[in-house]
Amino acid sequence: MFYLVGLGLGDAKDITVKGLEIVRRAKRVYLEAYTSILTVGKEALEAYYGRKVILADREMVEQASDELMADSDIEDIAFLVVGDPLGATTHTDLILRATEKGIPYHVIHNASIINAIGCCGLQLYNYGEVVSIVFWSDDWKPESFYDKILTNKKRGLHTLCLLDIKMKEQTIENLMKGRPVFEPPRFLSASLAAQQLLEIIRNRKEKCSSALTADSICVAVARVGSQDQKIVAATLEEMSTTDMGTPLHSLVIPGDMHPLERQMLLLFAESEKIKSVLSTEDTS
Amino acid sequence: MFYLVGLGLGDAKDITVKGLEIVRRAKRVYLEAYTSILTVGKEALEAYYGRKVILADREMVEQASDELMADSDIEDIAFLVVGDPLGATTHTDLILRATEKGIPYHVIHNASIINAIGCCGLQLYNYGEVVSIVFWSDDWKPESFYDKILTNKKRGLHTLCLLDIKMKEQTIENLMKGRPVFEPPRFLSASLAAQQLLEIIRNRKEKCSSALTADSICVAVARVGSQDQKIVAATLEEMSTTDMGTPLHSLVIPGDMHPLERQMLLLFAESEKIKSVLSTEDTS
Repeated sequence: MFYLVGLGLGDAKDITVKGLEIVRRAKRVYLEAYTSILTVGKEALEAYYGRKVILADREMVEQASDELMADSDIEDIAFLVVGDPLGATTHTDLILRATEKGIPYHVIHNASIINAIGCCGLQLYNYGEVVSIVFWSDDWKPESFYDKILTNKKRGLHTLCLLDIKMKEQTIENLMKGRPVFEPPRFLSASLAAQQLLEIIRNRKEKCSSALTADSICVAVARVGSQDQKIVAATLEEMSTTDMGTPLHSLVIPGDMHPLERQMLLLFAESEKIKSVLSTEDTS
Repeated sequence: MFYLVGLGLGDAKDITVKGLEIVRRAKRVYLEAYTSILTVGKEALEAYYGRKVILADREMVEQASDELMADSDIEDIAFLVVGDPLGATTHTDLILRATEKGIPYHVIHNASIINAIGCCGLQLYNYGEVVSIVFWSDDWKPESFYDKILTNKKRGLHTLCLLDIKMKEQTIENLMKGRPVFEPPRFLSASLAAQQLLEIIRNRKEKCSSALTADSICVAVARVGSQDQKIVAATLEEMSTTDMGTPLHSLVIPGDMHPLERQMLLLFAESEKIKSVLSTEDTS
């Protein structure tokens, strides 16, 4: 059996009991290591599982699935994914390849940011489409996520913004010389995401009532599910200078809010300004 | 500490290791028993945890939170919720009441249908607002969920339809006589939900291109995360007579589909008709 096992979001103990039993009895254990991270590394997982864990990077998962799935028609192979195996990053391609090969598969679900974002107090029912905010570079500053946020907001819906992760990037020089030297991983912070949104707001100067402004409410979450999880409600302007600490971060742009949702955000409001905005009934 | 612990979706072993440790050491263990169910009952949970579990119905959670949270400033109290504690049904009101009382709380996240619906192969990125389809009665046939499905579909987005659960209902006679006699729980099936959708389609006869028809594709999931999980892709007409077995069921109405998403749905297609629809590139 080829098992896709979700690890949840925090540390080694966020795996489910069912998932842990599979990991402990599997012939080989792979860890998908390019779309998300836990607050602990491979070594901590190995120590907790009592098992060797093989890091699987994008090339391996996309190009070497024969190797990955070898023997899984007769043995149990575990493929570990941070969050849910079919969550923010889906691995349906692996399921399709397993099925083609006649290999049975089973998914062990777990929390992913898509549902754990409920921790900030905004109801999951009231979210629209998820968006991804990417790292801008000097010559590439896409704004499509802003339009999606506005489309959700016009319908009164909240937007979960997933923030970019860059794993195994190469400099142009290393890439051109074919050197397998990789830059350290980079994670888009909530503050940088807010800065990018502010730049779009300044460029566009939109007049529609649902357009974002520097005073719009946003909520940042960091290290959801871990002991040092942090949640901050702030204006976009404030968020652009808020240090949420180590990765991963996500950002939420609320749509219309129910009084209970406002009360929840007040738990995470630090500045007097945002407390005052959240206590005012007619702003959303 | 007042712990809100997600149980995931399948059986007793879908709890996380962290969650199980809390349950085993908590002074009291409550099970929220009115918004969702596992495929196993309270007795199976008690046997697995080695702990007595107190059923908490809606009245208790909404009106007797003092009793529920008693001593949680000095002891660990566990409040178990099927799925994620802040998932499809949120318990933010409990968090607000705990905070008012100065009681620290901690959420142990887990899979909920909101993210585990990824199992049907449609990407979570491409879902719009979640809708709830309620049981119709002779004199109450709300259609608002249909409009939300269409609004998502016009944007090319999939819709997850959560299906109604009726726990502890009373007949009008018992209600009027003040007798605490409750009807057996009822769970809206995917087939009945499809029948209700078909009735709306017949009533409206809408002409817009994103309107649903009897031939529209839908996907039903049942008992997600359990050993006998079932997924079926079918036309709405076919779904109206498809038996998905015991609860819980959910229904998905796809928006625009990527070829990989179509391939995934083909794994769950039973009729020749739906296989042919899914293999045709230009229908969505």
